[in-house]
Amino acid sequence: MPHTESSTPATELVRFILDKIPLARAMQLELSGWGEDFLSLYAPLAPNSNDKGCAFGGSLASLMTLSGWALVELTLRRRDLACDVFVAESTIRYQRPVWQGFHSEARLAPGAGWSTFLDTLAARGKARVAIECVVPDTDGEPAASLATDYVAKLRPAAA
Amino acid sequence: MPHTESSTPATELVRFILDKIPLARAMQLELSGWGEDFLSLYAPLAPNSNDKGCAFGGSLASLMTLSGWALVELTLRRRDLACDVFVAESTIRYQRPVWQGFHSEARLAPGAGWSTFLDTLAARGKARVAIECVVPDTDGEPAASLATDYVAKLRPAAA
Repeated sequence: MPHTESSTPATELVRFILDKIPLARAMQLELSGWGEDFLSLYAPLAPNSNDKGCAFGGSLASLMTLSGWALVELTLRRRDLACDVFVAESTIRYQRPVWQGFHSEARLAPGAGWSTFLDTLAARGKARVAIECVVPDTDGEPAASLATDYVAKLRPAAA
Repeated sequence: MPHTESSTPATELVRFILDKIPLARAMQLELSGWGEDFLSLYAPLAPNSNDKGCAFGGSLASLMTLSGWALVELTLRRRDLACDVFVAESTIRYQRPVWQGFHSEARLAPGAGWSTFLDTLAARGKARVAIECVVPDTDGEPAASLATDYVAKLRPAAA
């Protein structure tokens, strides 16, 4: 990799998110890890708490939605594919209250594959991919999870 | 109703939300309407925009989740029932990009009823109710929608 610790495609993408999405700044979102097939974001509890002092459902939904979006966006950017990526349908399960800062880990859903997604995008200029995100509790069991589709559309080349 | 325009159960609840949930303040959430069987919240676009300049999916999810939560909470408060209300499962559809400030309207889901919910709560101290929320586009068609369950648990009476 030609990237330094302080400037990887993932850190650049998280800087882009913080620059472009005011709610991500309000959530104090941070990158917590990434690899070929996963991406993890972190949010502290204080700016993301609810009336009961645990994590606000909207913050859990937002962090999971962004971690999945970032995984798709990063996969495209690393191939120099300029796309707009939209979230389509999501199913969210809130399984346990979360009493501390939390991570969302995004991965391809079982049965989904980047090669199918990228081939369809190349052929049709538009493709859909299924992603799963999990917020693990302190014991590793899911506290919240998200199953969602993202749609990527190739942007027309600049004139 | 003994409440003035500036202090209804709904305005008090929205003040409570803004006081207790930092992300609701960041979203600049406002009450936009309420009645016996619906509650509507509003959020302006600027603090809720994404990298494309339209509404961030996490903001749409958060506003819809809060409007449904507020409808359930308000129904309980108006009956002097002190409960903790949690969101359980949600299915979200993002149907169109939203290019302006947006409302979320929460109502009981078809087939759900307050009397069943309140009877179960009285009998078991815990009950679940299905709520539907819609963010209408400028032409009235849904731009985003949420189908979700909320669980209410009666708080033990203070000693």
